[in-house]
Amino acid sequence: MSGWLKIVGLGPGSEAMITPEVTAALQDATDVVGYVPYVNRVAPRDGLVRHGSDNREEIRRAEQALQLALEGHRVVVVSSGDPGVFAMAAAVFEALEAGDAQWRSLDVQVLPGISAMLAASASVGAPLGHDFCCINLSDNLKPWALIEKRLRLAAEADFAMAFYNPRSKARPEGFARTLEVLLDACGPERLIVFARAVSIPDEVIRVTTLGEATPDMADMRTLVVVGSSQTRRIERQGPKEREPWVYTPRSVGAKSQASTSSRA
Amino acid sequence: MSGWLKIVGLGPGSEAMITPEVTAALQDATDVVGYVPYVNRVAPRDGLVRHGSDNREEIRRAEQALQLALEGHRVVVVSSGDPGVFAMAAAVFEALEAGDAQWRSLDVQVLPGISAMLAASASVGAPLGHDFCCINLSDNLKPWALIEKRLRLAAEADFAMAFYNPRSKARPEGFARTLEVLLDACGPERLIVFARAVSIPDEVIRVTTLGEATPDMADMRTLVVVGSSQTRRIERQGPKEREPWVYTPRSVGAKSQASTSSRA
Repeated sequence: MSGWLKIVGLGPGSEAMITPEVTAALQDATDVVGYVPYVNRVAPRDGLVRHGSDNREEIRRAEQALQLALEGHRVVVVSSGDPGVFAMAAAVFEALEAGDAQWRSLDVQVLPGISAMLAASASVGAPLGHDFCCINLSDNLKPWALIEKRLRLAAEADFAMAFYNPRSKARPEGFARTLEVLLDACGPERLIVFARAVSIPDEVIRVTTLGEATPDMADMRTLVVVGSSQTRRIERQGPKEREPWVYTPRSVGAKSQASTSSRA
Repeated sequence: MSGWLKIVGLGPGSEAMITPEVTAALQDATDVVGYVPYVNRVAPRDGLVRHGSDNREEIRRAEQALQLALEGHRVVVVSSGDPGVFAMAAAVFEALEAGDAQWRSLDVQVLPGISAMLAASASVGAPLGHDFCCINLSDNLKPWALIEKRLRLAAEADFAMAFYNPRSKARPEGFARTLEVLLDACGPERLIVFARAVSIPDEVIRVTTLGEATPDMADMRTLVVVGSSQTRRIERQGPKEREPWVYTPRSVGAKSQASTSSRA
């Protein structure tokens, strides 16, 4: 009897974005551990125990998963998106480092998933097609001053930016402040994308500018992408009215392929 | 006869990391377009034309794909990893914007894939578990001075960093300079991970520090991750000698869950 622990990403919501290795791990598991709405994405079956727990219970959940694996269970910890991006993988390693020394001999693997950032970017084109950064806007686990410092440095670096957890009912003011900082640093014409519920039927994508953006355009189900100074929009033609495509060219300055080889 | 264009990510190499929607798109395609080694990952079959092209042919390849779709073909453009991260999606939109106005009425979709960055991170634990940035170290399409500026600002922001295209035979000096800049900005104890050929049989993962890192540890098949000041290593116990886990805790400063609730 040898247990294992796999920390897996279920992707942003669509079944069609779950990788085969994650599906196989779930089929082979005796126990699934995670936040209730993510555990509920795994169909019940004989031989599988589903352990749903509350939000903000990450460390206790991680300890439970490690202990089950030590006892010989085949344990899958589920995250939405990718488990390594603001999700359960870091929590499991925090618990592992602080906990029972025997946990260090366990077979622990992380199986990546399609992150919300990549799915949101894909839904609108390729806004992360050049250098970018990714920031969690929740100040539950870090001081707000650090978030603001990172926003200003990211603007100075001219990164495109992807933001997780932009806004919750408990923290409505942080995202308003984020928009103020970015408007100041990047100007009103800078493109911003609000991608809500990406890949599931209630998906809503909105493309606008920092000058037009308002805090209520985001909630906890929204992934926000802000372009770099180079990010462009392309209006679509066609019978249906649709949001424009948004992309960041691969090149900066004189080193452009498209400008020399392909203007038709 | 209505054509379409899907720009898809094949993931880092393992078949088990290709999403079902990408597999379905490939099954439905009449034409696959891409860089030769990626096109070769798609099995030949009747009814499928595979158009392999050379590296640095991205814009011409994108134009070919758009034109085929306009003519009614069902076209899949393949990238390794995720198509939106330093890959074909941005190139297609560059070509689309600069080219034939009819291309703007096409059905163009981007289907995300497991990026090299996420797969490399997963292979070693969760080094990107907190705020991070992602930089392409090739100066083919941007000035080196901009790369160096971004490295310094990213270090000041205390981002973990993922680097694509660290080193090629044509540009051996850039990565040496990168290591010098980071050593200066982050100090010799900072963790660095070299993840080569992630998810395929010749995968090699090496964990070291900036003080010990040398330029030859990376090549074009290597994804490099540098930790933030908070990134930690955990030695594994067990019969086999294995690289340590590396992770970045979710919290910074006093706001730590693990330190209060889980020290066993």
